[in-house]
Amino acid sequence: MINRVNLKKTERLDDLLIDDLKLIQNPDYFCFSLDAVLLANFASPKKNSKVLDIGTGSGIIPHLMQAKYQVEKIYGIDIQAELIDMAKRSAKYNNIEDKLEFINANIKNGLEVFKRESFDYIISNPPYMKASSGKINLEDKVAIARHEIECDLEDIIKMSSQLLKYRGKVAYVYRTQRLAELLSLMDKYNLAAKRLRLIHSQIDKEAKLFLVEGVKGGGVGLDILAPLILNDDKGNYTEEVKKIYFPEK
Amino acid sequence: MINRVNLKKTERLDDLLIDDLKLIQNPDYFCFSLDAVLLANFASPKKNSKVLDIGTGSGIIPHLMQAKYQVEKIYGIDIQAELIDMAKRSAKYNNIEDKLEFINANIKNGLEVFKRESFDYIISNPPYMKASSGKINLEDKVAIARHEIECDLEDIIKMSSQLLKYRGKVAYVYRTQRLAELLSLMDKYNLAAKRLRLIHSQIDKEAKLFLVEGVKGGGVGLDILAPLILNDDKGNYTEEVKKIYFPEK
Repeated sequence: MINRVNLKKTERLDDLLIDDLKLIQNPDYFCFSLDAVLLANFASPKKNSKVLDIGTGSGIIPHLMQAKYQVEKIYGIDIQAELIDMAKRSAKYNNIEDKLEFINANIKNGLEVFKRESFDYIISNPPYMKASSGKINLEDKVAIARHEIECDLEDIIKMSSQLLKYRGKVAYVYRTQRLAELLSLMDKYNLAAKRLRLIHSQIDKEAKLFLVEGVKGGGVGLDILAPLILNDDKGNYTEEVKKIYFPEK
Repeated sequence: MINRVNLKKTERLDDLLIDDLKLIQNPDYFCFSLDAVLLANFASPKKNSKVLDIGTGSGIIPHLMQAKYQVEKIYGIDIQAELIDMAKRSAKYNNIEDKLEFINANIKNGLEVFKRESFDYIISNPPYMKASSGKINLEDKVAIARHEIECDLEDIIKMSSQLLKYRGKVAYVYRTQRLAELLSLMDKYNLAAKRLRLIHSQIDKEAKLFLVEGVKGGGVGLDILAPLILNDDKGNYTEEVKKIYFPEK
């Protein structure tokens, strides 16, 4: 059965290249980037997990995680109603409404929406920029996804810890410029960093982004994985990235 | 003029492959490893700096830094009298006694030996292992260099901060398993991590060690450099490591 989709003006339907999934996106808001795809691929939830994606946007991460890990139930929360509306319509179009649930709320109010310590795995691609950095229009829908306007990194990590079961896991993708800050916040909220992977555009270039996974109540001992190199010296995707980005090709 | 060197039993004289420098080492104690060479190469002291190497052992780092950066004066401190004795004899043999000064003391007593906030650059290759990890003989001279028997990571970082001038720099090489702990301690003692480089044995292998440089009183913003890959897929040193290890070849 193929569902009909009613796209609103300026919306488009993108192919996720896995399980025939499609995702409704709108360039006026925020389109998912490679970061979200790499994060979904990096995560390691168990099949019967209850997962939460904080700042889910148009729902890219829940869609990919459901396809990749057959997770039981994935929740996505986002402050922007229009993005949650798109995410819901995508889940309906893909016939996975029973697996994905999208909620329009500020994660700061997470304890009013979800039960404390109720998730097995929490994932987030947080806004990278401080609210004070760069010129931003506070009503700009793209800015809300990119800047710490409605919530900051500490809100996300604190709430991750409060909503996560003991021994549950978190995964984040973030800017290396703020690596020390993020590790320090994870430590503060009892999330022990266990796996870290640096993302380099090329083998001889600085890393701008990293992936990290932590365990609530975990012990000391961080594995730093092989670097993830995005492009070869000709600027083409490396074989690893091709496999992540185009799993069915 | 070539100095005579009186080697004690079991000592040997190793060529540092830079500036015709030699170093007296004793395999019964601790011989320097690639880690120290990579750290000395990673550091970025200015020429007129006053530098301190904490846990200097047989003085490898002061010797290399003096040759590489023409630093004005480098102090090395170590708890083991026999190693300091070797370091002093090496400096004498190399005719750089006016540049290098070696002191036999526990860094915990650093403020009794040195003036507070008197160094421009502080470097250390600390013991990697917790005192409690693995079987160790507490009188074992190699164990003292490898385990936190006489001082721990926090002692070294705290003392680095106390002995460093405002805006002075620190550099450490350490195990990735304890990266989060080290960054957190640097933060605690007002040493902002500014440059981080992961060391991988091969491009597709985990990083076991990292190099980090920080600035006392520095702001947020960490650069993660291109990964340092030690060996190619045949197990030979990469070109970069050859240049670091054998600068004159």
